[in-house]
Amino acid sequence: MKSNNQFSHGGDILAFSKKIGSKPKEIIDLSSNINFLKPKIKTDLNNLDISNYPTYEKLYKIIAKKYSVKADEIELFNGGSSAIFSFFRYIDLKHCTIYSPAYLEYKKAAQTFGFKIDLINRFEQVNKKVKKNSLVIFVNPSTPDGKYYDLDKLFNSWLEKNCTIFVDESFLDFTNKKSIISKLKSYDKLYILKSMTKIYSSASIRVGTLISNAKNIKKIKDKEPLWKLSHFDSIYLQNAIKNRDFISETIKITKENKKYTIKHLQKFDFIKKIYKSQANYLLLELQDCNAQTLQDKLISYKIMIRDCSNFDFLNNSFVRVAIKDKKSMQKFIKALKNEFKCIL
Amino acid sequence: MKSNNQFSHGGDILAFSKKIGSKPKEIIDLSSNINFLKPKIKTDLNNLDISNYPTYEKLYKIIAKKYSVKADEIELFNGGSSAIFSFFRYIDLKHCTIYSPAYLEYKKAAQTFGFKIDLINRFEQVNKKVKKNSLVIFVNPSTPDGKYYDLDKLFNSWLEKNCTIFVDESFLDFTNKKSIISKLKSYDKLYILKSMTKIYSSASIRVGTLISNAKNIKKIKDKEPLWKLSHFDSIYLQNAIKNRDFISETIKITKENKKYTIKHLQKFDFIKKIYKSQANYLLLELQDCNAQTLQDKLISYKIMIRDCSNFDFLNNSFVRVAIKDKKSMQKFIKALKNEFKCIL
Repeated sequence: MKSNNQFSHGGDILAFSKKIGSKPKEIIDLSSNINFLKPKIKTDLNNLDISNYPTYEKLYKIIAKKYSVKADEIELFNGGSSAIFSFFRYIDLKHCTIYSPAYLEYKKAAQTFGFKIDLINRFEQVNKKVKKNSLVIFVNPSTPDGKYYDLDKLFNSWLEKNCTIFVDESFLDFTNKKSIISKLKSYDKLYILKSMTKIYSSASIRVGTLISNAKNIKKIKDKEPLWKLSHFDSIYLQNAIKNRDFISETIKITKENKKYTIKHLQKFDFIKKIYKSQANYLLLELQDCNAQTLQDKLISYKIMIRDCSNFDFLNNSFVRVAIKDKKSMQKFIKALKNEFKCIL
Repeated sequence: MKSNNQFSHGGDILAFSKKIGSKPKEIIDLSSNINFLKPKIKTDLNNLDISNYPTYEKLYKIIAKKYSVKADEIELFNGGSSAIFSFFRYIDLKHCTIYSPAYLEYKKAAQTFGFKIDLINRFEQVNKKVKKNSLVIFVNPSTPDGKYYDLDKLFNSWLEKNCTIFVDESFLDFTNKKSIISKLKSYDKLYILKSMTKIYSSASIRVGTLISNAKNIKKIKDKEPLWKLSHFDSIYLQNAIKNRDFISETIKITKENKKYTIKHLQKFDFIKKIYKSQANYLLLELQDCNAQTLQDKLISYKIMIRDCSNFDFLNNSFVRVAIKDKKSMQKFIKALKNEFKCIL
């Protein structure tokens, strides 16, 4: 039985800094998997005219272009979690299959809207047959381990069962891997989520993209209000997306820092396993030490990591560590060296 | 039968300026009833850290204080229209009564979510009996005429019929009139909407407040995602609300400019009636001239007004004119003097 904490997330720097009596700026947050690099924005937000109702045509056009789809194949929501909640609210299904562990908002939304839930353990039974007509949820690359799955085979098995397919690609921009968008034309019950929060380092900006065919999108759009996105957020995101080198630079530097981190983490005996990750975070399995103990040990170094015990199929031997700037990763390794025996 | 245009709003300056080949800045927009005064904001938005997930405690606290309710008696949505759509989506009722003419999003939301709709003509039959168990929608002060209603008597008649009551007070800040919030404690099926878009001149900021008792709010909040409001919007609004003199200054200057406008409009023969308004806009009934003709005549002056023919119980003899700065109102009157015979 999961605790009250069952849907809690990483990244609450304010609460952490308050708890340990430090300033938020002093905290090294490895608990939330937000890009540590930030896009450069040219617009002066202080002088933006916000008195008129916003129009979203430009934003839709730029986002559609980014994902090589048409503007009528996307609906923008107030962030990924809003898109998930709206989707579960609208879709006329009663059963869902979540490949787990997965981003916890899926389970929460499924419970909220009265779905019967099957969980499939991705690590052990990824090829397990799913129920006919189920809504299939797959996060790719996955959280909290960062594995990218080639979904071709699974996709066909879902088709056979007439499933509605929902693939969350919110971390795909951190990889050079292919998107499932190419399947949109061949299957009419496919939905793809792109949160953008992570890659553009903007969890405070509430824009998330849901992609499907124009018919499905129209059905969803018809139930949505006229205006819901902030003009500030719209302008910020338009600027960020135009900054094309930003993604390739992110992939390059994150890869370097991840390599550095893995190289050092491998030297510690208390780390039983480092999961292979294509994304900007690492799932670690611990031994002779649990998530809570490790979290506590890192408090005096002002470092936050993510206790993964509330993820399905994981327990208190698992933590997630985000890849941030080199200096933060060095401080993290140094803290571990102070607290644990280094093997090599 | 209403046209395709049945839910169209005023305020699309971009489309208007494009149509007439002018810059948006040159347009005098009297079609949208946004406050022409803007609150002063102290925070530098360009340097706001937006990489972390937003927390809303401060915003909830400030808004709750503004309306003298508790933080657990409000739920914030992405603007008034989002609140309306969510409310109709969640409330387990099938019949609604809209006191009309009213803000058109109500009818749209009611249609979208399959409600049976009764319209009550406020001008002619405001005391008409409503159906038992109906969801009653009342906008106070009302749109597009700006009349403030003392709802005590009506409220009791709704209670007798066990109605769920939804009062939209998005323009109440433009008046010194009392809110229906005082009835919250005595009736458990009362909801109040405050859009804030109008008074704080921030249609681009998507924050709208729904107020009810804590039990109702919890039921709604349970179906809402974790994060949906933009941090930019949150900070902007917190600043705006703190600026306490802003509302009294708005009321004072709007009143002066309204008085000036009414004084001059009374001199025109083509205006049959100016509706009494407590808000920052005026409903005009025309004679020997229709809304479309008046709109067209004002194009060469780069002035936009609101054709009210898509409001229920109004026709193409009605236009709405927003009260803006003195200079804009003078230009409007001057344009009318050029186009129409002035009686006095």
